[in-house]
Amino acid sequence: VQPIGVFDSGVGGLTVLRALRRTFPGDDFIYLGDTARLPYGTKSPATVTRYSLQCAELLVQRGIRCLVVACNTASASALDELRLAHPSIPVIGVIDPGAEAAVAASRSQHIAVIATEATIAGGAYQMAIRRLRGGARVTAAACSLFVAMAEEGWVDGEIPQAVARRYLDPIFRAAGDMPDTLVLGCTHFPVLAAAIGAVLPPGVRMVDSAATTAAALLKFVTPRPLAAGPGRVTWLATDDAGRFARVGSSFLGEPLLAADIEIVDLTTPLPR
Amino acid sequence: VQPIGVFDSGVGGLTVLRALRRTFPGDDFIYLGDTARLPYGTKSPATVTRYSLQCAELLVQRGIRCLVVACNTASASALDELRLAHPSIPVIGVIDPGAEAAVAASRSQHIAVIATEATIAGGAYQMAIRRLRGGARVTAAACSLFVAMAEEGWVDGEIPQAVARRYLDPIFRAAGDMPDTLVLGCTHFPVLAAAIGAVLPPGVRMVDSAATTAAALLKFVTPRPLAAGPGRVTWLATDDAGRFARVGSSFLGEPLLAADIEIVDLTTPLPR
Repeated sequence: VQPIGVFDSGVGGLTVLRALRRTFPGDDFIYLGDTARLPYGTKSPATVTRYSLQCAELLVQRGIRCLVVACNTASASALDELRLAHPSIPVIGVIDPGAEAAVAASRSQHIAVIATEATIAGGAYQMAIRRLRGGARVTAAACSLFVAMAEEGWVDGEIPQAVARRYLDPIFRAAGDMPDTLVLGCTHFPVLAAAIGAVLPPGVRMVDSAATTAAALLKFVTPRPLAAGPGRVTWLATDDAGRFARVGSSFLGEPLLAADIEIVDLTTPLPR
Repeated sequence: VQPIGVFDSGVGGLTVLRALRRTFPGDDFIYLGDTARLPYGTKSPATVTRYSLQCAELLVQRGIRCLVVACNTASASALDELRLAHPSIPVIGVIDPGAEAAVAASRSQHIAVIATEATIAGGAYQMAIRRLRGGARVTAAACSLFVAMAEEGWVDGEIPQAVARRYLDPIFRAAGDMPDTLVLGCTHFPVLAAAIGAVLPPGVRMVDSAATTAAALLKFVTPRPLAAGPGRVTWLATDDAGRFARVGSSFLGEPLLAADIEIVDLTTPLPR
């Protein structure tokens, strides 16, 4: 059975990989972090699409049976192009699964979404939620600093909570109608869940795309039986294995070794 | 007279450009911000060198008479390679000028340097300072979050000061011998000077590379007389003119218009 391909701009997608491995424990994975060009979240849709196509091309050349775009920014900008470029395999993003999780969690159908600048500006979450629930109200905010803070390993305590308060108070402490659900619309954000949760009003539910993305993939891909032995992960990055391993371990929730990470070059055209 | 070329990973180098324009008011400049691939400060030396060579190549093709590497990370990793690739024009970095400013400002010759991960890990500031003053003691710290905070426009107040305290207290509030000078070894950091200054002990002097880089360039390049009219700047970026203009205005200290910024592609090989 061919491996499942997963890519992200860096280590954020490891929060999605973790959920995928729980649902597909017998499957092999190839994870690619485009660490040389992260973050995607402050780049234009055209650039993010170009980079995403290069990531997908490399994974397809390695023989994957399906592709998970474990990056909200890439899912928001590049999903259609990725499907056009690779019509023979299922290509799954994290936006629709995140929107499904939000709509399922919300009672009031007033939903807040926090994500990168690019994801918010593109409006993909807003559209995905309204497609699922026409009357839903969506309040969206870009939280760029969360990405750098997660990468720095500052995941809870005074500063992360102060930053969370600055981004979230305008949404949740405003007078009047308050969202009852917060979508973590960037795969970096789940590692900050404690700090974010600490500044949310009681009763607000926090959801992310990880578990629902794994469920979405189940619709298209049959898991390889675990009886054949647990699956393995092949690690690829475009820069700095040491940093990928160090920062990535906290996202993955288990130790990653720099020696296990292969560095690949996406800027040189691949042979066909 | 041909223009002066300046490049940086993004908008940080605008703090250097500002000082250059004060010293060379009659000169034309071409400024290139590699915004598609910023930040450089978390990338490996090999990747930073590759990107820097591409930036320089494009500027040289546009006919510059000298090159200022207005990025500490690129100066630390790529200066020798840039000089080898372009032996016919002066190539100036910001590390040696920053080290000169530090040595001139310090009485105790215990100097602190804050910069990106890549600059600190490479040790270029530590070496440049010790080359100028053999007995100097250098305490260095990476402050990755400062870059994202400066880009987000959070330049002073509670959060920037809390972040500055977390990075700087271990250097300046430790028992015993304390540095008397702090080098802002990243061109993003001068916009955070108020927040950084607010948490420094009294008497500590803050220096950056901008003014001394302009002075260093004067040794190699004769300014074009202002009598011929004030110089103009040609703006180039590799992604997202709107974001470059918005964030760059605060670094440059004057308004920048997105319509004046030309988007260039560095990933396609240039014709020779």
